[in-house]
Amino acid sequence: MRPAQRDPLPLATQRLASGATKKGEQMDFDEKIDRRGTNCNKWDHMERVYGVSPDDGIAMWVADSDFRPPACVQRAVQKITDHGVYGYGGDKDAYRQAVCWWMEHRHGWRPEPEMVFATSGLVNAVGLCLHSWSDPGDRVLVMSPHYHAFGRVVRGAQRELVELPLRVENDFDLDVHAWDAMMTGAEKILILCSPHNPTGRVWSRAELMEIADFVRRHDLLLVSDEVHADLIYPGHSHAAMPLVDGVEDRLVVLHSASKPFNLAGAYLGQAIIPDPKLRAVFAKTCLGLGISPNMFGVPMTTAAFSPEGAKWIDAQMDYLDANRAAWEDGINALPGVRAVPLQATYLSWVDFRGTGMTQAEVNGRVYKDARIAAHAGTDFGLGGDGFMRFNIGTQRANITEALSRLHDAFGDLQ
Amino acid sequence: MRPAQRDPLPLATQRLASGATKKGEQMDFDEKIDRRGTNCNKWDHMERVYGVSPDDGIAMWVADSDFRPPACVQRAVQKITDHGVYGYGGDKDAYRQAVCWWMEHRHGWRPEPEMVFATSGLVNAVGLCLHSWSDPGDRVLVMSPHYHAFGRVVRGAQRELVELPLRVENDFDLDVHAWDAMMTGAEKILILCSPHNPTGRVWSRAELMEIADFVRRHDLLLVSDEVHADLIYPGHSHAAMPLVDGVEDRLVVLHSASKPFNLAGAYLGQAIIPDPKLRAVFAKTCLGLGISPNMFGVPMTTAAFSPEGAKWIDAQMDYLDANRAAWEDGINALPGVRAVPLQATYLSWVDFRGTGMTQAEVNGRVYKDARIAAHAGTDFGLGGDGFMRFNIGTQRANITEALSRLHDAFGDLQ
Repeated sequence: MRPAQRDPLPLATQRLASGATKKGEQMDFDEKIDRRGTNCNKWDHMERVYGVSPDDGIAMWVADSDFRPPACVQRAVQKITDHGVYGYGGDKDAYRQAVCWWMEHRHGWRPEPEMVFATSGLVNAVGLCLHSWSDPGDRVLVMSPHYHAFGRVVRGAQRELVELPLRVENDFDLDVHAWDAMMTGAEKILILCSPHNPTGRVWSRAELMEIADFVRRHDLLLVSDEVHADLIYPGHSHAAMPLVDGVEDRLVVLHSASKPFNLAGAYLGQAIIPDPKLRAVFAKTCLGLGISPNMFGVPMTTAAFSPEGAKWIDAQMDYLDANRAAWEDGINALPGVRAVPLQATYLSWVDFRGTGMTQAEVNGRVYKDARIAAHAGTDFGLGGDGFMRFNIGTQRANITEALSRLHDAFGDLQ
Repeated sequence: MRPAQRDPLPLATQRLASGATKKGEQMDFDEKIDRRGTNCNKWDHMERVYGVSPDDGIAMWVADSDFRPPACVQRAVQKITDHGVYGYGGDKDAYRQAVCWWMEHRHGWRPEPEMVFATSGLVNAVGLCLHSWSDPGDRVLVMSPHYHAFGRVVRGAQRELVELPLRVENDFDLDVHAWDAMMTGAEKILILCSPHNPTGRVWSRAELMEIADFVRRHDLLLVSDEVHADLIYPGHSHAAMPLVDGVEDRLVVLHSASKPFNLAGAYLGQAIIPDPKLRAVFAKTCLGLGISPNMFGVPMTTAAFSPEGAKWIDAQMDYLDANRAAWEDGINALPGVRAVPLQATYLSWVDFRGTGMTQAEVNGRVYKDARIAAHAGTDFGLGGDGFMRFNIGTQRANITEALSRLHDAFGDLQ
């Protein structure tokens, strides 16, 4: 690994373009797009899961956005469709180069192409890590509240999920000394979510150094899920884990165009592994499970990780930042309700504990009265009780309408 | 499982439509399609692998065809592209129903939807079976010559690959009694390829019963890869393994639209598991590895497994059957060369042993003189020496040209 530069700070917040939302093809984030009837999970299944009708409900649960990707991605898909032969794809050279370019230009470190493994999405990548570096019964660590799919894949792989509690009362700070006391010696892997889902926290470089010390102290493999690294709000900056010293020989970075470019359905993620010995193990796991990326995800991702894609991301962040401001103002105006200040991601973690209501009461008002589908905090394990996660990666009109409904639903609060 | 009917024979050769090649959109298999420069493995990488230039070479190696899928599949892809939001997909109900419909109407058995698991292609499905029902060091059986990817995934999973030799001198018949003598008690899984790649053999019901007895006798899980079951030539009929008694509690059927509809790049295959206990194990494996099908493969497959798809398959089989006849006539006219009579698949297994040449000599003439990229028989393990596998799933003009070049390259044979 050759870090392109260690200082100044990573380039995530240094914009390649002006970032102004350009009206026109693919850049009009206000364009209403009806996703109902497209067999998307978020809009088509909220009735089944939450009883919220798609006829007048607002979907703010599943972590995808309601935006179309940039034109460069659309052109890549259309090119495949126009050719219309869907046989075996070829090499992944251009894809790997695009990943490396993106990491260098957006995150200030340059992996080598041979470090990049294509996986069938990031949950698959986590599963491949579990199978590569732990055995059934081993303890696998996540920081809670945690992304629910981590729990599913860890338990599915018959590993023991150990939840390291973040400090709820301090906006979900690390609590490394308390975690030290929880270790038994049977721990093998820490899955770090950086930036953090569901709290929207960006970990500072100092915090990442604490985590690096922790994994070294307990001899853990560090899986750093950085899928939200391209969704950082102004005033914050993400440090990629490879920029932190001392973990290169125990590090797997997970990244994907799925969240920033809204390509989750293409199920392509990359595991980036600086250490050659770890790479040999991971390669064998992939071979023994027949992991091959599909012919859509590869060119879509390659197209996304480009200067055109970067411009679009900047425009999207401007749009999301205005969503965030409107959302937090509206939520914080509800007595006893508070949005944890969002530093990254389009997933807002909202604290309803000040209302004195139970989670069930809060859920009822959100689902039935406001007709909004959102994740109950309890889906995210320890520290989630009394919270809800709302997805603000949608058209502003949905944000405004959701706030209006929440104000009605919680209008009795003093 | 409710077999729709045990007799008469499976419907694979009972055509839903007349089967006549209809000229026009999607049904003109003679249409020249230039796949070069589309990052397809078959045409774009034959120079790297075989030294055969794409400028004037003919690609007859990788097992995909050079045809576009039926219009119903193209419409499904275009619909996704037109909508242009690529977030998380929803349920797989329609896909599972389509798989069940296809199995009932084309293969005479009707699985229930809950038996159908979506995997990231069939090699992935094999890997998931290995991880579900064997441990590193266990012996896993294949019938050789065998599809090379079976060997890669078995060895990658650190299982011992055991090759059960088919009887070369009898056009690759079973040799079950010889196999019995090879068993040590450490065997866990037999991977059956039915119809068989690379030999193009369709196993008769009597042969399948022999295999059923064999797996029961040695208490093996039976993975029946039936991906070529929709590519059966007139005069032959494929019996799906679930139609053979006595293996339901140890059976995983693998199937996909990938080979018949040329959708391998979409990387979607299905594992169909009649037994509920086996299903529980497989479901856990998928959960622990985060296996999710992508949003392209699911609707493409759903569209393919339909009456329109069935008509197209029939038309394709008529076209392939004419390819087969021309190919076998041309090959068999070469002194000392013989095509094993193709019963299924578009992969012709050609015996060059009668020429007295070494494999290297044969390869040299095919690659350098004829400028044809084809798989050397030795890629397929035991019983492959002296053979080559040629893919005839291409436009007739390519078949004619390939035969002409082979006649020139081997013109000195007497």
